[in-house]
Amino acid sequence: MGIRVAVVGASGYAGGELLRLIAGHPEFDLVAATAHRQAGQPVAAVHPQLVGLDLVLAPTEPAALADADLVFLALPHGESAALAASLPENVRLVDLGADHRLTDAAAWTRYYGGTHAGPWTYGLPELPGQRAAIADSTRVAATGCYAVATILALAPLLAAGVAAPDDVVVVAASGTSGAGRAAKPHLLGSEVMGDLSPYKVGAHQHVPEIKQASGARSLSFTPVLAPMPRGILSTVTTVPTGPGVDPRAVLAEAYAEAAFVHVLPEGAWPHTAATLGSNSCHLQATVDVDSGRLIVVSAIDNLGKGAAGQAVQCANLMLGLPEATGLPVYGVAP
Amino acid sequence: MGIRVAVVGASGYAGGELLRLIAGHPEFDLVAATAHRQAGQPVAAVHPQLVGLDLVLAPTEPAALADADLVFLALPHGESAALAASLPENVRLVDLGADHRLTDAAAWTRYYGGTHAGPWTYGLPELPGQRAAIADSTRVAATGCYAVATILALAPLLAAGVAAPDDVVVVAASGTSGAGRAAKPHLLGSEVMGDLSPYKVGAHQHVPEIKQASGARSLSFTPVLAPMPRGILSTVTTVPTGPGVDPRAVLAEAYAEAAFVHVLPEGAWPHTAATLGSNSCHLQATVDVDSGRLIVVSAIDNLGKGAAGQAVQCANLMLGLPEATGLPVYGVAP
Amino acid sequence: MGIRVAVVGASGYAGGELLRLIAGHPEFDLVAATAHRQAGQPVAAVHPQLVGLDLVLAPTEPAALADADLVFLALPHGESAALAASLPENVRLVDLGADHRLTDAAAWTRYYGGTHAGPWTYGLPELPGQRAAIADSTRVAATGCYAVATILALAPLLAAGVAAPDDVVVVAASGTSGAGRAAKPHLLGSEVMGDLSPYKVGAHQHVPEIKQASGARSLSFTPVLAPMPRGILSTVTTVPTGPGVDPRAVLAEAYAEAAFVHVLPEGAWPHTAATLGSNSCHLQATVDVDSGRLIVVSAIDNLGKGAAGQAVQCANLMLGLPEATGLPVYGVAP
Amino acid sequence: MGIRVAVVGASGYAGGELLRLIAGHPEFDLVAATAHRQAGQPVAAVHPQLVGLDLVLAPTEPAALADADLVFLALPHGESAALAASLPENVRLVDLGADHRLTDAAAWTRYYGGTHAGPWTYGLPELPGQRAAIADSTRVAATGCYAVATILALAPLLAAGVAAPDDVVVVAASGTSGAGRAAKPHLLGSEVMGDLSPYKVGAHQHVPEIKQASGARSLSFTPVLAPMPRGILSTVTTVPTGPGVDPRAVLAEAYAEAAFVHVLPEGAWPHTAATLGSNSCHLQATVDVDSGRLIVVSAIDNLGKGAAGQAVQCANLMLGLPEATGLPVYGVAP
Repeated sequence: MGIRVAVVGASGYAGGELLRLIAGHPEFDLVAATAHRQAGQPVAAVHPQLVGLDLVLAPTEPAALADADLVFLALPHGESAALAASLPENVRLVDLGADHRLTDAAAWTRYYGGTHAGPWTYGLPELPGQRAAIADSTRVAATGCYAVATILALAPLLAAGVAAPDDVVVVAASGTSGAGRAAKPHLLGSEVMGDLSPYKVGAHQHVPEIKQASGARSLSFTPVLAPMPRGILSTVTTVPTGPGVDPRAVLAEAYAEAAFVHVLPEGAWPHTAATLGSNSCHLQATVDVDSGRLIVVSAIDNLGKGAAGQAVQCANLMLGLPEATGLPVYGVAP
Repeated sequence: MGIRVAVVGASGYAGGELLRLIAGHPEFDLVAATAHRQAGQPVAAVHPQLVGLDLVLAPTEPAALADADLVFLALPHGESAALAASLPENVRLVDLGADHRLTDAAAWTRYYGGTHAGPWTYGLPELPGQRAAIADSTRVAATGCYAVATILALAPLLAAGVAAPDDVVVVAASGTSGAGRAAKPHLLGSEVMGDLSPYKVGAHQHVPEIKQASGARSLSFTPVLAPMPRGILSTVTTVPTGPGVDPRAVLAEAYAEAAFVHVLPEGAWPHTAATLGSNSCHLQATVDVDSGRLIVVSAIDNLGKGAAGQAVQCANLMLGLPEATGLPVYGVAP
Repeated sequence: MGIRVAVVGASGYAGGELLRLIAGHPEFDLVAATAHRQAGQPVAAVHPQLVGLDLVLAPTEPAALADADLVFLALPHGESAALAASLPENVRLVDLGADHRLTDAAAWTRYYGGTHAGPWTYGLPELPGQRAAIADSTRVAATGCYAVATILALAPLLAAGVAAPDDVVVVAASGTSGAGRAAKPHLLGSEVMGDLSPYKVGAHQHVPEIKQASGARSLSFTPVLAPMPRGILSTVTTVPTGPGVDPRAVLAEAYAEAAFVHVLPEGAWPHTAATLGSNSCHLQATVDVDSGRLIVVSAIDNLGKGAAGQAVQCANLMLGLPEATGLPVYGVAP
Repeated sequence: MGIRVAVVGASGYAGGELLRLIAGHPEFDLVAATAHRQAGQPVAAVHPQLVGLDLVLAPTEPAALADADLVFLALPHGESAALAASLPENVRLVDLGADHRLTDAAAWTRYYGGTHAGPWTYGLPELPGQRAAIADSTRVAATGCYAVATILALAPLLAAGVAAPDDVVVVAASGTSGAGRAAKPHLLGSEVMGDLSPYKVGAHQHVPEIKQASGARSLSFTPVLAPMPRGILSTVTTVPTGPGVDPRAVLAEAYAEAAFVHVLPEGAWPHTAATLGSNSCHLQATVDVDSGRLIVVSAIDNLGKGAAGQAVQCANLMLGLPEATGLPVYGVAP
């Protein structure tokens, strides 16, 4: 008998990826999956890629979760706090939403609106000390998708003191699944194919999260919607604090023991397709010959390391399992 | 100590997918991967999605395969027969190429040219009697990608006598990985994105294979290149032999026990994205209200059930393992 | 002072393409563009590709059309008949919807539902006699997108008696703009990219239109949604009525004088990207070596020759202008 | 009798777009198109979108250009200078390659290698004074694709003194046609679809060109290959020189009279699909709320304003024609 697992908000894209990972996890038993409007439908009617997974979506209510040892919350921002409060403390919760990521309530209010629900343990195991913190927690807030890609690229450079925290410029592009499954006109295939489209320019809600977790003090962050279902490519530039900085070496040392963060061989640059379906993050860095800026590029699958994979990784730690249990390292390509 | 496995032709797309599946297979140990021009390179330099898999591509020579209990041959058509002949009879071989699929030497010569190498056991486990035949073989010729999708849709209808074998019309579209990794101008991203392009119209080499394995006697087959990396959608139409034929029921019965072939619920139609990265085939059928023809649609991942997945499924049978060992049923979507 | 032109239903994809073509037409003056929910918005807010076209969308009411000599109706099926009835007889109307295409009221009711509004002159100029009929009309029903591609491939073969009208099998794939601009979950970019998806299998509403205009008596028609914004590729197979039929020669003769229908050189097959943004249809044909069936493939831009371009072509004829005025022959590729 | 025009290097993507624009230009007569390996082939065999354009590709030799008043050179970098030297001075030449763009010979040698051919008039008409300079020239070097997008976003801010020239960070993504038509493995459709891939990180050859034409003194420029055939989105950030800078207003004033550069309404951001097939550049700007940096985003069609359209615009000026003759303002979308 394995660990009994439930997914709340299972009808969305992160929810579907959670179901796929849970179904393939050797220690997890999927006992419930909930949804709002699609409650009552078979999982496979909502996620055709899961044909053969015989489970009906339950309504999103505490009763549906009564049997679970572990609950993943994949709800829109602002909806998980209330449900979480209704669940027993000994049930492990991993929130894929933003409700519990920020320590700064004012930042929450400015970027998300309303009252902040308060912080949980921040679910990015690769940050120093965070594996242990997650293992000791029953409430973990998994990292945002853009935030994962950007923090993993940036944090070791700032921690090592080789880059300036007050001059960070990030342009990051995401596949469309990052925008969710709600049917909005600008997300139609006809609109997004063949198109690169910036959005929330100058004011994206991941800015305070990235600053909090990376140590950046000033951050210009521009997100771009890219014509592909999955993947985030984050291009992070900053300024070296002195001559002779080797950003690749700093990253390689920081992630020498990380199962899922790969600093590529010199000359090889990350690209998103290589991470599809995996929990991996690929990194590379250099110094710009003209401007002297440090440039770090990271690639992840926004539904993998950027959402469901990251959440399962945290859950493994919370449960005392090997961190990589049930998580693919290799991408599905081409 | 697991089964020692080698992949010949590991630099191509089917080869890369084989490496991914083997790396995740609980009973397989990858001992060698070979290539021609890319011999000497690390696997991850050729397949960036496999970063972390530490293996260097060896030259394609028998010596590289000396330790293997099981060898997958993923070579261009016409190149596997000679290598196969040089390997001991007790080494299990699965050929993903066409060299050993056809029983009709004349058909080989007409569609592929040159002299036929002779047939091996045909590697489509879902055909009646074929699981046992594969289990008894050390040489198996895995089914072609279009052929898998089309035969699974058609064979049960012909075997049940509900469809006419002399009037079969197939239009099948494939993602670009089916055309291989050789750099040809018409396969450039600039050319294929936004484009549907028919090719080999009126004379595709999978025609004799489909006829041989399905029982069709006359087959019109038109392949189309589609703007996506993976996936085959085969639309198969034929004529019912009498009134009241229920093609979906025939298929559902034929595949009631099949782990990887899913006849979808009524009203749901297969689409390729739902099979990405998996070894599954999705099927649906109906009777056309205007013409009365039977229409069956099947979807697979051309590198999964259409190539590497299918080959691993055959290998599992050859080795006495459960057929589904190490093979994903669920697709990676969106 | 040119011809005063209005577009009703200008917020959709066909409407946007009409605006683009009208703006570049040397004899047309765009005087009004109407919409429902988006009335009041500037055209460029709804169609960002038309930035610089300074016009505000008016509500869809007869008053907005009072100044127009020519009105294009690009409304959902079933909505144009009532508006058309309110406009003076001397105003030229081209309906891009289906309301007035069918001569068979029963077929309308079966495929579209409700009461048929009655037929107008059928707007496919390349059919024999149809140029003159269109030129004599003030009410023209432009051809459906799948229907254009299929009829142009099929009609000359049936008219010449070289193909059997009672055995026609068509599989046609369309870009997503053919499914319209309404935000539906299955049309999200995340869903359609990387995906081929059949729909309305066995019962598509273009079947009676294709039969009526081509002379086919039995038609199996399967549409597939393809991962690209525009383009239709129709693969049409039928049976020759005798030996030695040369379908390409029949098509080449039929379209020898057609400005927009190009029978490609032998060996070259149509593909959709080559027609993007144009009013052209590309054709090729052969005889299948195995089955002996005739195979014709046609490619169009579904918003060009399949909708807006076709409608402008009809309007040119209605107004006594050269048929090709303001219409691109060449596609935008890659 | 119009102006006799020839295209050298007509088999590539920029060459094909030039042919399309010339064919639709009311004052141009296409008299010759040349190629290397594809000389002798009909244009439509190389560019299927130009079916109906009856011209055979000539070898790239001066004799083929003897009748031309105007020659467009669309050759690989380093190949146009020699050919240009062989043509009479009164023949107008527009070079789409890089050979004559830079004024700094050392920068040429560092980024392109070899000896610099010397500068021609820089072909970006929207720069102050450049329209007149182009009109007075018979030799014009059209701007590079990334350079167009970036310079148009940046130059007015630096010229107005509102942005710091020594802190410019650019991340720009391009469709695959920008990488040319040579068949390279990493440009295969299977590789690029679903993928974002940075390249030449830290050392792109457009850096000196952008600095020269925009006035930037330090430039970090990271290019990314995006999964679409056409389009460039350039995200340009810099630092305001004082409080209260309104970058949008500066751009709007700079381009108030420009036919092809559109500063979008406030709140609307450029996206590439809206410029497809056009000669337009869309711009928007804001101040980042967190970092205070200026962010400007520009979108173009890399083969339009980024190559062939830009070149025709320059040619119009050189010939005393209205600048916009034969050039589309509106994009083809969706």
